Amino acid sequence: MIIRSLVTGGAGFIGSHVVNHCLQMGHEVVVLDDLSGGFEDHIPAGATFIQGSVTDEKLVSELFAEYKFDYVYHLAAYAAEGLSHFIRRFNYNNNLIGSINLINESVKHKVKCFVFTSSIAVYGAGQLPMREEMIPTPEDPYGVSKYAVELDLKAAHEMFGLNYVVFRPHNVYGENQNIGDKYRNVIGIFMNQIMQGKQLTVFGDGEQTRAFSYIDDVAIPIAKSVTMPAAYNQVFNIGADKPYTVNELATVVCACFGVTPDINHLEARNEVMHAYSDHTKAHSVFGKGSGISLEEGISRMAVWANKVGARQSQEFANIEINEKLPQGWAKAPAAAGTPA
Amino acid sequence: MIIRSLVTGGAGFIGSHVVNHCLQMGHEVVVLDDLSGGFEDHIPAGATFIQGSVTDEKLVSELFAEYKFDYVYHLAAYAAEGLSHFIRRFNYNNNLIGSINLINESVKHKVKCFVFTSSIAVYGAGQLPMREEMIPTPEDPYGVSKYAVELDLKAAHEMFGLNYVVFRPHNVYGENQNIGDKYRNVIGIFMNQIMQGKQLTVFGDGEQTRAFSYIDDVAIPIAKSVTMPAAYNQVFNIGADKPYTVNELATVVCACFGVTPDINHLEARNEVMHAYSDHTKAHSVFGKGSGISLEEGISRMAVWANKVGARQSQEFANIEINEKLPQGWAKAPAAAGTPA
Repeated sequence: MIIRSLVTGGAGFIGSHVVNHCLQMGHEVVVLDDLSGGFEDHIPAGATFIQGSVTDEKLVSELFAEYKFDYVYHLAAYAAEGLSHFIRRFNYNNNLIGSINLINESVKHKVKCFVFTSSIAVYGAGQLPMREEMIPTPEDPYGVSKYAVELDLKAAHEMFGLNYVVFRPHNVYGENQNIGDKYRNVIGIFMNQIMQGKQLTVFGDGEQTRAFSYIDDVAIPIAKSVTMPAAYNQVFNIGADKPYTVNELATVVCACFGVTPDINHLEARNEVMHAYSDHTKAHSVFGKGSGISLEEGISRMAVWANKVGARQSQEFANIEINEKLPQGWAKAPAAAGTPA
Repeated sequence: MIIRSLVTGGAGFIGSHVVNHCLQMGHEVVVLDDLSGGFEDHIPAGATFIQGSVTDEKLVSELFAEYKFDYVYHLAAYAAEGLSHFIRRFNYNNNLIGSINLINESVKHKVKCFVFTSSIAVYGAGQLPMREEMIPTPEDPYGVSKYAVELDLKAAHEMFGLNYVVFRPHNVYGENQNIGDKYRNVIGIFMNQIMQGKQLTVFGDGEQTRAFSYIDDVAIPIAKSVTMPAAYNQVFNIGADKPYTVNELATVVCACFGVTPDINHLEARNEVMHAYSDHTKAHSVFGKGSGISLEEGISRMAVWANKVGARQSQEFANIEINEKLPQGWAKAPAAAGTPA
């Protein structure tokens, strides 16, 4: 029996890895990606690529009618949490309305399971570690959009029987990451800055902590979840357990490139100081993960980054609110992301 | 000093009353309404009417630039909670993206206070009575869209200093209600059915309870909230305290029209059985309310309804999912809302 899967955002970072694992499981895979953050050459061979956006309801409807997907893996998103305050409409259009188009079609075509990558951004700055049984109260538009999709999926399950699995990953890094996006993914930003001989930019004192998650520990459970009924209609935190400060991270990344850390501390932005989550629930269903350390994971990513080289950072074209835009993100004078 | 207010949905039911109270407070009022649920002749004389949608970002942007509003009262919404499962995309576009357009412009133009009518739909089926300190977990797309706007407003306040007041009214009725909308507002539906000599339609056994709120007890606090700093950046339940069953309601409405209740019980739909909320917080800031009883309020509304007469019910044109659409809501055979 042929298993057909749709992977939205399949040319993106996590998406391209999920496509790879789906192909290994024998799925026929259709990738829908608008290439706003992804790259066509990241799509694994064997997948069918459709260039387009999840916000294009006509296209989405046609794809479902044509391919009659068994599973939907919805990874397409613009996941720039910090920037989302300044691009509210874009954020909700992309991350919520796009998801709703997919949920509508998944209900109509009786998809067997809808896998959604949410984010720990849904939790807001609450008690740590974040646990799935907490009721989320997101504090930025990105987190709000992700949480709204989670709630909508639950409603769609209860009304129409659509099965779902929600993952809340955090701070994922690894090969295929878009290191040219200056608005997100600190590890990629650091690597891109090092390869361009620039200072590393850090918002605030760098003592904020995050648990950085190697891609395999996220993409493999996502891909496999459709085969695990115990995962259905459940929410899972997923990723690494151990938090590091951004300064510690800079040390590890610089070591992999054989350079001495040279950090430019920018004004602190509005973000949570500490964020890490409990993964007991995910481990009980998906097992313990790869055990790849931060040093090992970053070293693997560095090999890849050295091979592909630095990327030119792009300005986000349609900032909606310029007030309070963090240093280095504003269009205007000098600062183009990384002060020289 | 001239005070300029924008009232979105000002041709609608609650909106037209809010416009009236704003005019009484001496505001210059601009009404933005697309007339999808409202009526131009409900807009009080003295307000400036712009026909258009909050989803039209260009129009919204032009209005803010031209009028430099002090206050924004955002009441435009398609508030058909039960139907929202079947019109997900429409729901989020109207109720969330439209709100975001207004929030963006309110930040940019430094509006002094943004008043938002949310709904008790945000609570979901939790503990009763619903209280503001509970963390909401909405269970249908309408409630999700309203809660997302609440969270976004809080984020906009914290990032940009935009002041807001959130109201969560419930089951509001009174003069100017759209009694031709068969998807919402049971009192209006009953009146419309009685005036057409039809049976009253009730989903399920009619023992579900709601606390029906007379319009003055909702519209007056909404209008006045901008003058009350104690209300700023707060959330308020608002409306009547006393729950009635839908069967009891039918008795009261029929008595006002001098007819004997004749009820057609349709299949129960997916809705919460009981919903009422605590109003202690609102009373402490806005006072106790009008004290108008259900009998008195319905009698006032009946006088108005008898004057304007029955309205033809319209089918909602763009149902997105037809599966599980409640009886009487489906397009197909016979049932056009009210089986004869």
